Amino acid sequence: MEKIQSLEAILDTIPDENDRKEAYRILYGKPSTKIELPEEVEKIAKESNFDIKGWKFVPALEEETRKKRLVRIGAIQNSIVLPTDKPILEQLEAIHKKIGKLIEAAAMMNVNVCCLQESWPSPFFFCTREKFPWLQFAQDVFEGPSVKFCCQLAKQFNMVIVCPIIERDTQHQDIIWNTAVVVSNHGEVIGYHRKNHIPRVGDFNESTYYMEGNTGHPVFDTEFGKLELIFCNFGALSEPLWPIEARNAAIANSYFTVAINRIGTEEFPNEFTSGDGQKAHKDFGHFYGSTYVAGPDGTRTPGLSRIQDGLLVTEVDLNLITQVKDKWSFQMTQRLSDYAQLLKDAADLNFQRQIIKPNKK
Amino acid sequence: MEKIQSLEAILDTIPDENDRKEAYRILYGKPSTKIELPEEVEKIAKESNFDIKGWKFVPALEEETRKKRLVRIGAIQNSIVLPTDKPILEQLEAIHKKIGKLIEAAAMMNVNVCCLQESWPSPFFFCTREKFPWLQFAQDVFEGPSVKFCCQLAKQFNMVIVCPIIERDTQHQDIIWNTAVVVSNHGEVIGYHRKNHIPRVGDFNESTYYMEGNTGHPVFDTEFGKLELIFCNFGALSEPLWPIEARNAAIANSYFTVAINRIGTEEFPNEFTSGDGQKAHKDFGHFYGSTYVAGPDGTRTPGLSRIQDGLLVTEVDLNLITQVKDKWSFQMTQRLSDYAQLLKDAADLNFQRQIIKPNKK
Repeated sequence: MEKIQSLEAILDTIPDENDRKEAYRILYGKPSTKIELPEEVEKIAKESNFDIKGWKFVPALEEETRKKRLVRIGAIQNSIVLPTDKPILEQLEAIHKKIGKLIEAAAMMNVNVCCLQESWPSPFFFCTREKFPWLQFAQDVFEGPSVKFCCQLAKQFNMVIVCPIIERDTQHQDIIWNTAVVVSNHGEVIGYHRKNHIPRVGDFNESTYYMEGNTGHPVFDTEFGKLELIFCNFGALSEPLWPIEARNAAIANSYFTVAINRIGTEEFPNEFTSGDGQKAHKDFGHFYGSTYVAGPDGTRTPGLSRIQDGLLVTEVDLNLITQVKDKWSFQMTQRLSDYAQLLKDAADLNFQRQIIKPNKK
Repeated sequence: MEKIQSLEAILDTIPDENDRKEAYRILYGKPSTKIELPEEVEKIAKESNFDIKGWKFVPALEEETRKKRLVRIGAIQNSIVLPTDKPILEQLEAIHKKIGKLIEAAAMMNVNVCCLQESWPSPFFFCTREKFPWLQFAQDVFEGPSVKFCCQLAKQFNMVIVCPIIERDTQHQDIIWNTAVVVSNHGEVIGYHRKNHIPRVGDFNESTYYMEGNTGHPVFDTEFGKLELIFCNFGALSEPLWPIEARNAAIANSYFTVAINRIGTEEFPNEFTSGDGQKAHKDFGHFYGSTYVAGPDGTRTPGLSRIQDGLLVTEVDLNLITQVKDKWSFQMTQRLSDYAQLLKDAADLNFQRQIIKPNKK
């Protein structure tokens, strides 16, 4: 399963051209058009074995009362660099170096908003359930080394950077959160969002480390548009879910979603079990990348590679958001008050489901 | 676009066998296994040009404290039979005859719960915005001709039938609803559900005919398991959304969903416009079938044909539902109370979104 480059590489072997086009249409919606890579970027991609792709979404309609709001979104997926038994600071330095190169490529492609993967400065160590040494990767949302690193690059390249870290909250008894820090294009932290729904499945022992977030559902107002953060990170078990959930969120909520997943197999020094009756082992399983962007109209880009580090650049017109809202009117018919009441009832200790039974004979 | 038999027919032309398997795995999850069709059913399928397929979901785990709860779900997709300018009663009789044949085939395949498509007794006339003659298809949830027809077949074949109709509510000033009637395997109406979210897009002028439903979110307790009704019906514009939404609902809510879509192009006697700047025309566009079943673990069956009437039989073990709930624990971490409050706030006239802005310089 690890050897397949991407689903798209397989679809491209469909012999009949019309069939191939139809498959892409049914699977991905309106076809995006390629952004040609600058020669410099091609070179970096080749030298560093990065999968770099650029796509323009089908343009939104031209409006008379406002201008286009074109934004280039960069999404970066990557494997770790050093083995996990190397000193923490060395691991951190090595990953900073790789990410620096990818962000530089993003800058060359005029990316305005660049998103990194969940907990990018560290391996995905939650499978181990070990607090030490891994929580040495945890850092402050303002002063942490990876945040400062992103602030410096954000300023240098005039680029908003979303920097997801494992946070140590020194203001509140040193507890840990899973936090996405939003850095403005002037290199300052605008704010942050703590992950709201913490998985309790398989090797995702994240709840051993941190609780459900307490930062609500903020929108970050940047120079390039308002960001609502939805980030996903999946493991080997769930590859068939990967194309579904972020894309459904884009459709249901009428916004763009950026689904970024890591790459590679991470091995840890000590063995651990997975709560599935299988023997102890030292790796999490394969992270399959396949990073993509989905739009409010259900269109999505092809995915990045399943096995290579990569940068996905997607040009979108934010005007598409209101255009789709106006056309589909989902928001108008969502019956918020009804569901507010329903959820309140459902959370009540004495809640009884509405069950309709046949008449007794 | 109308000529493609199905996405699966295209995927089956992928030359490399391993690639083909990988494509199906990534797109559909764990492979379902075929149910062989009885000879009689093969014959009906051939004679009537039906696409009949049977799939068994990968089995749930064997439990020690309860038995398997195997259920065979039938999903029927179909085109209308007579042209829409024929007398209403003749149209009704002809569609009853076709559906009778498909339900009989479902019975031969031991289907326990059979679902028909939205508003199956009539053409999808909402594009016309004409109340007459179309609302002559509207009927009573207990006494309507198509409901009685289903009651009779349900009893004959010991099969629960979900019978979606356009309802005339004679108890409440003759208003119209879009209603799914649930008929027990003893041939009695257990209850009904009125569609909650009425589209206002393109030719889906359903809101011209009926309002958002007032029957809540009931669960129907049948001899073969509890049914929660989620039904979808789409038009030509939205084919890339079709594989996403019902499947996402199955994943997010840990149940099985049955996504049924009509077939064919329906022409109406009088021309109408579509609110899209295009010229008046007489047809809705192509309904692309592709009916499928999705499970709580994200697995889905291949779809039925895009161009043929069809019956999809899917054998599932309802025990999978709690097994997935226990494994993934989505319900545990869904934070119902928080969202109840959030939706309440969001519906308030004075609601202010949580927007985080950069500091002013």
